[in-house]
Amino acid sequence: MHPVNLEPGDQPFADATPRAVQPLAAQSVGVGVIGLGNVGSGTLAILAENADQIALKLGFPLRVEAVCSRSVADKQIPAALGSPVRTTNWREVVDHPDVQIVVELVGGTTVAREIIEAAAARGKSVVTANKELMALSGADLWDSAIAARINMAMEASVAGGIPIHAVLREGISGDRINTLYGILNGTCNYILTEIERRGAGFDSVLREAQEAGYAEADPSADVDGFDARSKLAILAALAFGERIVPADIYTEGIRRITPIDFGYAHMLRHTIRLICAARQTPDGLLLSVRPSLIPQSTILAGVRGAYNAVWVRGKYGADTFYYGRGAGPHPTGVAVVSDLMRVAREIRSGSPERVSPFAHARLGEYLPIPISLNRAAYYLRFRVKDRPGIIAQLAAALAAESISIEGVLQLPDEDASDLPFVITVEPTTEQALRDALARMAKMEFLIEPPLAMPIEASL
Amino acid sequence: MHPVNLEPGDQPFADATPRAVQPLAAQSVGVGVIGLGNVGSGTLAILAENADQIALKLGFPLRVEAVCSRSVADKQIPAALGSPVRTTNWREVVDHPDVQIVVELVGGTTVAREIIEAAAARGKSVVTANKELMALSGADLWDSAIAARINMAMEASVAGGIPIHAVLREGISGDRINTLYGILNGTCNYILTEIERRGAGFDSVLREAQEAGYAEADPSADVDGFDARSKLAILAALAFGERIVPADIYTEGIRRITPIDFGYAHMLRHTIRLICAARQTPDGLLLSVRPSLIPQSTILAGVRGAYNAVWVRGKYGADTFYYGRGAGPHPTGVAVVSDLMRVAREIRSGSPERVSPFAHARLGEYLPIPISLNRAAYYLRFRVKDRPGIIAQLAAALAAESISIEGVLQLPDEDASDLPFVITVEPTTEQALRDALARMAKMEFLIEPPLAMPIEASL
Repeated sequence: MHPVNLEPGDQPFADATPRAVQPLAAQSVGVGVIGLGNVGSGTLAILAENADQIALKLGFPLRVEAVCSRSVADKQIPAALGSPVRTTNWREVVDHPDVQIVVELVGGTTVAREIIEAAAARGKSVVTANKELMALSGADLWDSAIAARINMAMEASVAGGIPIHAVLREGISGDRINTLYGILNGTCNYILTEIERRGAGFDSVLREAQEAGYAEADPSADVDGFDARSKLAILAALAFGERIVPADIYTEGIRRITPIDFGYAHMLRHTIRLICAARQTPDGLLLSVRPSLIPQSTILAGVRGAYNAVWVRGKYGADTFYYGRGAGPHPTGVAVVSDLMRVAREIRSGSPERVSPFAHARLGEYLPIPISLNRAAYYLRFRVKDRPGIIAQLAAALAAESISIEGVLQLPDEDASDLPFVITVEPTTEQALRDALARMAKMEFLIEPPLAMPIEASL
Repeated sequence: MHPVNLEPGDQPFADATPRAVQPLAAQSVGVGVIGLGNVGSGTLAILAENADQIALKLGFPLRVEAVCSRSVADKQIPAALGSPVRTTNWREVVDHPDVQIVVELVGGTTVAREIIEAAAARGKSVVTANKELMALSGADLWDSAIAARINMAMEASVAGGIPIHAVLREGISGDRINTLYGILNGTCNYILTEIERRGAGFDSVLREAQEAGYAEADPSADVDGFDARSKLAILAALAFGERIVPADIYTEGIRRITPIDFGYAHMLRHTIRLICAARQTPDGLLLSVRPSLIPQSTILAGVRGAYNAVWVRGKYGADTFYYGRGAGPHPTGVAVVSDLMRVAREIRSGSPERVSPFAHARLGEYLPIPISLNRAAYYLRFRVKDRPGIIAQLAAALAAESISIEGVLQLPDEDASDLPFVITVEPTTEQALRDALARMAKMEFLIEPPLAMPIEASL
């Protein structure tokens, strides 16, 4: 007996294979996997190799009934999975009468949405790894899912190896979250920590990362912060129950970070990471993705290489921290399989009543506000053509916006003809800082616009 | 309508209060809290202050129907909770017709067990923070809970602020765990990191911790490792699905750790923490609670003060790390409330089908083995009456057990009359090490038995 909405004309049992010879299959929950790239193949490997433990933890097995890929003929399906239907047409997976959970791993926001909507229309639950679609339309898709009385799970959409969805949805659901910081793009973190470790420049580290397969040929989604932005949009929506529009999140990439910046950051006992921040302030919720100075003594500063991490502060539970691989077929596969187990358990227990993870939005206490209202100390790095009076002019621009200088830093061994130096300023608003930077824009001794980064104190 | 097993003679609606004036109450899930110490009062505070967000996340409110404490008359109940029944008799809470979930916060293994069994007998689910009882009898109590078709939740029993149960039960349930390391006793970690930070001795730091309320008047459960042992027993049972007998876990406390040991550990680029370890080896599962050297570069080494942390390595998901407050009314209260929300959701969705979190025990691949089979490099610290030939004699004892010396360390500024020095040895078995230490027992130049700590390499 499968709780599948059969359409007129469906013949789920037309297949003459005698099912009775597979006694467990009658109790299994059927899975269909659409998309057999890295994550899909990792998922199938875990479902095959770890089947015994999965079945014991659940009390019943998961059974892969159908798989779909544009190049399905070339894909190796683990022998332990038996002979699932292999197809290039995703509708065959969604329509398969024994598929109770549809795993959407094709990515993007077009076909993926069609797959999810088709599954919901047939009363089938969905597991997805699609950060882009969930960031854009997660709340709406959840509303449809609830209306269709299906479940939806998306652990794999953010920080593959870190079970941050389970943490926010269940582990600390009783807390009231104030602040969430994330290092959510492994490529950026790898590049930054390589610049820090070896003193190499951004371009050469990026090229190496591309050669090693850690970065895409077109690196923009990673190094310009858009991938991290999608992930922050999802996590902030879950943590604060707000509908977050990704394009509204202030986003700045890491292309301008140089070894010099790490030298100055270290002088200040800080380091630099691409920080995804969501902070409740008295005015509202501040969201940003940007390179930031964080104290070397904090646990986030210890996140190196392609790892991801999330740091959460709640009103009651204080600070907690979560760390793991951000991507990879197997870590992300664990997220997909763990979601499958949870959804399968709920299907078996016949539980249709659920609430959108975005449900607490109605409190309205976390409405996003513009980044110009951010208040922080800032690091300002200048490259100038040397001449007298530079500091005086910069200081005047800051003073005109009532910004106090905290310190001026200059590394001793720099070439005097192209002189990067740093001014740190006391906490001010981003708006005041922008106004001061606008005043500086006309100063002809600047070789490039100043690089401004917040110095995160609340970590 | 409440899914409560009514006994003949119960008169749940004899109370004449017109329930119709509280429209939400009809949809609420009723909670009874037994034990109003630190965790109980933290739980009530969160249920009161965070009620709006909890109700939105769940789709219905939680309602505290009854509270019990031996000194209930002296307890402040948050006004927002209304007027729950207040009693000194826990049976009144369990028997209350509107209580659907019983929260057991009395601790210990006698009354707590009675409470849980009485709740199960009435078909009521249980949330508990009881590490001792869960470590001793968790698997049996779970079997009873399943037979009674109730749910049981115990997030608060280990590492209060860290949602490690949610992580193991759901977040990474699809993985196959190889190794789990924990820093699970905040008092020990506070004492060790204060010794490290200030160079103060164990006794004086302990005394300060007692005066500040961080350590009990009788500190044995903490500093001798028994509290950590209970927590490791629970986490290892969840991670590996084995029935773990706490008394079988090799356990060693931190009383012998001195500032000198940190000096030597730092020379080796390591630090010292009370490490709870559960590792799968080719021979079986190795469990231990003991002070250990861990590399300074690892993320566990950054865990300071009263924080807890858990580091997990899975076959597929690689390493993940979880960090937060180990205790405290509010962090532990978050764990209790989050459990209440999950259990309430399952009650409302009418889902009785569940599996013990210890279910995968049947695989039998993780059977615990004796610590004598542990294989590690070791740190051996000696205090001796100085005379010629000491190193030669110690080296001979090690050589007799085929143990190779890795290095000999002596801090330069030590008083020659009472000379702590260190020998590190290459990986060997704990049995060989013990045999060598037995040979040394007769050497009259030793002021005290050598202090032996493993050097953890697999972190």
